Amino acid sequence: MPILLIGIDGSPRRKNILQLNQRAYGLVQPILASPSEINAEVSPLACGAHVLDLGVKSGLGGLEAGRQLAEICLSGLASVDFVPGEFPGTRTAVQVRTDRPRLACLASQYAGWQIKGEKFFGMGSGPMRIKAAKEPVIHEMSLIDDSPLAVGVLETSQLPDDAVCEKIAADCQVPAAQLFLLAARTASIAGHVQVVARSVETCLHKLHELHFDLSTIESGYGIAPLPPIAADDVVGIGRTNDAILYGASVTLWVRESTDKLREVGAKLPSNTSSMYGQPFEKILRDAKFDFYQIDPLLFSPAEVCLVSLLDGQTTIVGERNDAVLATSFGQG
Amino acid sequence: MPILLIGIDGSPRRKNILQLNQRAYGLVQPILASPSEINAEVSPLACGAHVLDLGVKSGLGGLEAGRQLAEICLSGLASVDFVPGEFPGTRTAVQVRTDRPRLACLASQYAGWQIKGEKFFGMGSGPMRIKAAKEPVIHEMSLIDDSPLAVGVLETSQLPDDAVCEKIAADCQVPAAQLFLLAARTASIAGHVQVVARSVETCLHKLHELHFDLSTIESGYGIAPLPPIAADDVVGIGRTNDAILYGASVTLWVRESTDKLREVGAKLPSNTSSMYGQPFEKILRDAKFDFYQIDPLLFSPAEVCLVSLLDGQTTIVGERNDAVLATSFGQG
Amino acid sequence: MPILLIGIDGSPRRKNILQLNQRAYGLVQPILASPSEINAEVSPLACGAHVLDLGVKSGLGGLEAGRQLAEICLSGLASVDFVPGEFPGTRTAVQVRTDRPRLACLASQYAGWQIKGEKFFGMGSGPMRIKAAKEPVIHEMSLIDDSPLAVGVLETSQLPDDAVCEKIAADCQVPAAQLFLLAARTASIAGHVQVVARSVETCLHKLHELHFDLSTIESGYGIAPLPPIAADDVVGIGRTNDAILYGASVTLWVRESTDKLREVGAKLPSNTSSMYGQPFEKILRDAKFDFYQIDPLLFSPAEVCLVSLLDGQTTIVGERNDAVLATSFGQG
Repeated sequence: MPILLIGIDGSPRRKNILQLNQRAYGLVQPILASPSEINAEVSPLACGAHVLDLGVKSGLGGLEAGRQLAEICLSGLASVDFVPGEFPGTRTAVQVRTDRPRLACLASQYAGWQIKGEKFFGMGSGPMRIKAAKEPVIHEMSLIDDSPLAVGVLETSQLPDDAVCEKIAADCQVPAAQLFLLAARTASIAGHVQVVARSVETCLHKLHELHFDLSTIESGYGIAPLPPIAADDVVGIGRTNDAILYGASVTLWVRESTDKLREVGAKLPSNTSSMYGQPFEKILRDAKFDFYQIDPLLFSPAEVCLVSLLDGQTTIVGERNDAVLATSFGQG
Repeated sequence: MPILLIGIDGSPRRKNILQLNQRAYGLVQPILASPSEINAEVSPLACGAHVLDLGVKSGLGGLEAGRQLAEICLSGLASVDFVPGEFPGTRTAVQVRTDRPRLACLASQYAGWQIKGEKFFGMGSGPMRIKAAKEPVIHEMSLIDDSPLAVGVLETSQLPDDAVCEKIAADCQVPAAQLFLLAARTASIAGHVQVVARSVETCLHKLHELHFDLSTIESGYGIAPLPPIAADDVVGIGRTNDAILYGASVTLWVRESTDKLREVGAKLPSNTSSMYGQPFEKILRDAKFDFYQIDPLLFSPAEVCLVSLLDGQTTIVGERNDAVLATSFGQG
Repeated sequence: MPILLIGIDGSPRRKNILQLNQRAYGLVQPILASPSEINAEVSPLACGAHVLDLGVKSGLGGLEAGRQLAEICLSGLASVDFVPGEFPGTRTAVQVRTDRPRLACLASQYAGWQIKGEKFFGMGSGPMRIKAAKEPVIHEMSLIDDSPLAVGVLETSQLPDDAVCEKIAADCQVPAAQLFLLAARTASIAGHVQVVARSVETCLHKLHELHFDLSTIESGYGIAPLPPIAADDVVGIGRTNDAILYGASVTLWVRESTDKLREVGAKLPSNTSSMYGQPFEKILRDAKFDFYQIDPLLFSPAEVCLVSLLDGQTTIVGERNDAVLATSFGQG
């Protein structure tokens, strides 16, 4: 299956060259024009970079800001919605749906770019990662994004300053004035929403770790609980990860045989990891905040439905774990 | 937290001055242009006021008319959607979501303006209430809406005539030709939908009765069953209230401590009222239709989840009562 | 109740004359402009007819293509959405909602036109059926569509060629260049989605078979599980029918008395058929693929809620059958 070719105007383009940043920008533009509409704030910078605060400063952002943040992070190639859900400590869930799972989730949404400045730390996601091309996963997909601008999402407790923005712009090979960054801390409403919108992405990333051919995945649908918003970033990292690990259900429609899907499925859901069963905050603290001490295969949805488009069978693996969710969400 | 400043163009405006009527009008305009699209009817009046019938006359309106009526009533500051729901006698629920709960629900949606004419009675809601400024709740918020027009929703069994419209226009200080009223009787599809879209509003109003500082509430999400549409207005008032009192689940994200939220939560859900447990139609008839005989603290959702943004804990109070819903919805 | 009069501009039109094809075309136009947006392919034909492949060729289409296909089939008179659903073998459901059930479902969506060519077979649906006026159901409604173009949906395993398109265009009395056909095979994602979006339609058709006056039905809401996508068309026909027969819940709001609704309700849901209880594929094979051997009264949703707008009562008939769904969806 060839790599999808999507020009901003929808016209076919040369192989592997696309404009996901331009596409994401189409969703950023209305926020720039009316930031108060979603309770965002524009933070002006001398270098010309455009920084939008959707939840770093207390009181900014909200549910809709989080929903739009997630769709921008997915380069506009997925729909994100709120739906009712009965979970310990919450009645709200976040649904995501895409027919471009690889481009939307792995090339765009995956938070694979750690951005560090003198006093700055943030997890970078969104299509700017394609332009920066710092991660092996981008190289493997042989993607080139020739948009004249870069759009990124930062999960961070501080807004980036000129030095950080100029560094990101240089990495993306765009002038600083063509860089558009949207930021929210984990411990904010928008910050939580945009993470739990990563149910399908987490599943794709785990499959990638298992060396599964992602180009066979045609569509994805996922749902995960929106946890009580944590007041502390570490607790928030814990809860949003638990929402995926113990609460998410993901369906993938795959052009692969059920035999192969059962094989990969046996290693796929979070409960196949040796670290499964503890709230993620505890796992993180036990590892002394060293992510390299955490089993990379832990990161996966609680439940996965793999629909084989070759033989029409569904393989369902894993299951929701309300006991851990109750502990994590403070209802234990 | 400062009062939100939202100009129609999204630009920051002077403190407490906003244009919610203008904003709501943006949703009314397409209905005026194509009323048949949602099965509405324009009722021409000599005074020039624009009256749209979405369910006073039998056969008008519908599900989508009710959805749009609710969003207009909320000044376009909330999303209203239909979602599946398993309740006695119904499989359909109405979901509402907002990041401006105080402006959307209390300043706009709350049906706090009783409009009486010689032969007319209707409950008035929508942003026209800000311009009329007849209710203490509007004064408390110190809101001024300088839109050149007024938009209101009437729950009524008759369409307003010239005298009623001229009175409303005068109260709102706009020419009659700049008054836009949308009407549906309770006993209509749109009439039921727009009431059960009040789950978050009812919760905010109860919190206001409990003297809770509403400016600390950042976002709201609610769901309530759509009852079988009553053929009689009193039965309809009963069922739509029961949908909230015994069927609604509301989540509020609040910048307040869990201690304070537990304190107010103990008095918040409908089951804390002495009148809880009977279908609302019976309560209304027992009170001989004198609303002043009904415990004002009864009006609240069945279940409320209060998420503290200060300490990250959720307080869940109250619970759904399917037994009363079954009686109310004719499945007892 | 008069037949609804809907001009494309929303203006009232002469009785029974409407432009549903023009309306559906409004949803086709964006696909023609950017087919890759929903993973569709334009298939050019010498005769000038516009054929869009949303799932005949392997790898085309997807969830969003199916959603749009369904809305086009419904002439844009209904909303189709994905919602979470817990069913055997699937976690995804398709929701449909309309305030024009007769025009959306019976006049447009019903797959009542068998289209045969020399080597071609397809089930035709969509508003082109009104222009072709080949079916008694269209005549009974006395509908005339004076759109200058025709829009149709084909459930087929082959794309139509020039001969087939010219025949359809002639039947619809439009030039071939004014014919717009969207095609997907049953055994595709879009093909499954567009069939399970037929929950309300199936209910209306059964009511029509029972000689119920459909003009009394004001609104409809339905939900049905999205089965695991079959790799084989016959299995797909089986599963998508089972999704309706054993998994769908439909609510209709009807201007008729509960007495009459109970009477028709007793014969309405699928479990009132003598053939109820077997997966549809088995029923089809037992009938040696001769549809005339299958009880026409089998085709109905599992559960129906009939809300009487005359007396306000709900009649709920039938029920979901997870055992048959499990067998059909390969989870037996």
